[in-house]
Amino acid sequence: MSEPTLDIVAIGNAIVDVIAQADDAFITAEGIAKGSMRLVDTETAKGLYARMAPGIEASGGSAANTAAGIAALGGKCGFIGQVAADQLGEVFAHDIRALGVHFATPARPSNPPTARCLILVTPDAQRTMNTFLGASQYLPASALDHDLIRSGAILYLEGYLWDPEEPREAMREAIAVARDAGRKIAFTLSDAFCIERHRGDFNALIDEGLIDILFANEAEIASLNRTSDFEAAVAATAAKVPLLVVTRSERGAIAVHHGIRYSVPAEPVAKVIDTTGAGDLFAAGFLAGQAQGRDVTASLTMGAIAAAEVISHYGARPETDLKALIAKRLG
Amino acid sequence: MSEPTLDIVAIGNAIVDVIAQADDAFITAEGIAKGSMRLVDTETAKGLYARMAPGIEASGGSAANTAAGIAALGGKCGFIGQVAADQLGEVFAHDIRALGVHFATPARPSNPPTARCLILVTPDAQRTMNTFLGASQYLPASALDHDLIRSGAILYLEGYLWDPEEPREAMREAIAVARDAGRKIAFTLSDAFCIERHRGDFNALIDEGLIDILFANEAEIASLNRTSDFEAAVAATAAKVPLLVVTRSERGAIAVHHGIRYSVPAEPVAKVIDTTGAGDLFAAGFLAGQAQGRDVTASLTMGAIAAAEVISHYGARPETDLKALIAKRLG
Repeated sequence: MSEPTLDIVAIGNAIVDVIAQADDAFITAEGIAKGSMRLVDTETAKGLYARMAPGIEASGGSAANTAAGIAALGGKCGFIGQVAADQLGEVFAHDIRALGVHFATPARPSNPPTARCLILVTPDAQRTMNTFLGASQYLPASALDHDLIRSGAILYLEGYLWDPEEPREAMREAIAVARDAGRKIAFTLSDAFCIERHRGDFNALIDEGLIDILFANEAEIASLNRTSDFEAAVAATAAKVPLLVVTRSERGAIAVHHGIRYSVPAEPVAKVIDTTGAGDLFAAGFLAGQAQGRDVTASLTMGAIAAAEVISHYGARPETDLKALIAKRLG
Repeated sequence: MSEPTLDIVAIGNAIVDVIAQADDAFITAEGIAKGSMRLVDTETAKGLYARMAPGIEASGGSAANTAAGIAALGGKCGFIGQVAADQLGEVFAHDIRALGVHFATPARPSNPPTARCLILVTPDAQRTMNTFLGASQYLPASALDHDLIRSGAILYLEGYLWDPEEPREAMREAIAVARDAGRKIAFTLSDAFCIERHRGDFNALIDEGLIDILFANEAEIASLNRTSDFEAAVAATAAKVPLLVVTRSERGAIAVHHGIRYSVPAEPVAKVIDTTGAGDLFAAGFLAGQAQGRDVTASLTMGAIAAAEVISHYGARPETDLKALIAKRLG
């Protein structure tokens, strides 16, 4: 079996974010669950866009943000995701390639267009996401580059991919390819509502021993285990995965690695502006740390630093030199 | 003659900015004059985009930024500019309309695409702009809504419109329409290199008494008068326009109104991130102050506050509540 040449190969929805400010009254009037990710169709997206404030556009997508963060930290990454042959697809491809991430999934014809996520950021810096999946939901198994998947030490997947049918099937194939090559699988649970929709599938992946590294936040680990008892939820899932990482917002993060628990506090942030991408960048920092051979605590600290950077500005990709931030703290 | 119903009608290039960080070495290697605006063709734009860092996209365009700022300050505005029927055109239209600016210029077929400006922001927060004019250079005189122009108390034009031929001709018609309706004309000199290209035309407009309010920065007023003597340049131009406003970066701004000079210091900024849009937002604050019936000094202060806000983050449109900032300072 050949040695991997990349640290991570990530598969995820290829999305351009449209980020705008909104007040709580607007979220309520639109009938959206604040803090969640909901899928919207063309008409809903069009109507919401017409009513929302002016925005800025920035490449997004959960696993894509993680790949971007790992690359910004010096890791070697590949990304697989479906864009359309349109302007936003070009933006997505440019942004991820400009970080040195290998991205070569062919664009589909321009209808439906590249996925976009209408993100409403409230004054408390919470983000509420309205995702129009567009081209992204048509990522076919045939678009998977098996050699690329085999080239990564870790295959990283986002739970959001379970929503659309084609990517869900593609994921099962990707997992099999990675497993056959002796690679590890990392998985993020993505969103509590997403877990509601796919709890059976997610638990099956875990129970079958297919997940080596699992990322979740408090709401997600609770939803997965159908309990609001944090410790019980962590214990139940930690018994089934070799490495569990749970982010806890301002309470920091913990990891349970083969039964041993580690924890770090949250990094201080002068002003939290937009929490979009916090979990994605935490995963980036953690996985980059692991790829660099750092221990669990140092990897958690790298996650906390990367997350703190991304919530200090609008947009889910780093704006400052993450490598320099880490070097300052950890050397 | 009927009374105007809008404070300002602005005409300008309809541009979406692509904003990315760059170091000085990159600017030098690309052979670009740092701090300037240069026009680039499709091939140059494509090559530069492929080499530059990941970006964020945000609506821009000089006069459009000014219209956005005036609307954010509660002014009534219209905007005329040419986009293509594509995704970036939709972004531009959404962003300006979401602020309540009347914008109804019909989109052209999608080739060439909507204008974009590749903006390189160096660590000193200076911006260097590479503009691909695309659809914007084809704004025809026939797209001018004469009733809209007549409805504005002030017609606001950007010097950049003199670069492409069709908009230049359209501007002459717009000026005639506004003059016939008894409206004032405000004009911004835009860029020292742009003045190099059109000094004769700009001076002719001024000499013919067609400009009521002229905006410039130090480099532009120097270029217009072919002198590096700031006082001499101000005196020469102030003798030919009723109201001259000159911004001086960290040295604040001055105005000369019918021979009387006013000045304000720059507003303090915690950290200057990206100076894109500083002049545009200064003009917005100043014109909004004038529309509110404030005196010249208060209008200059509004300009300084709006400019300080826009340089404290990436992007050339306000991100914070400008009205609240002004109310806190001026009541």
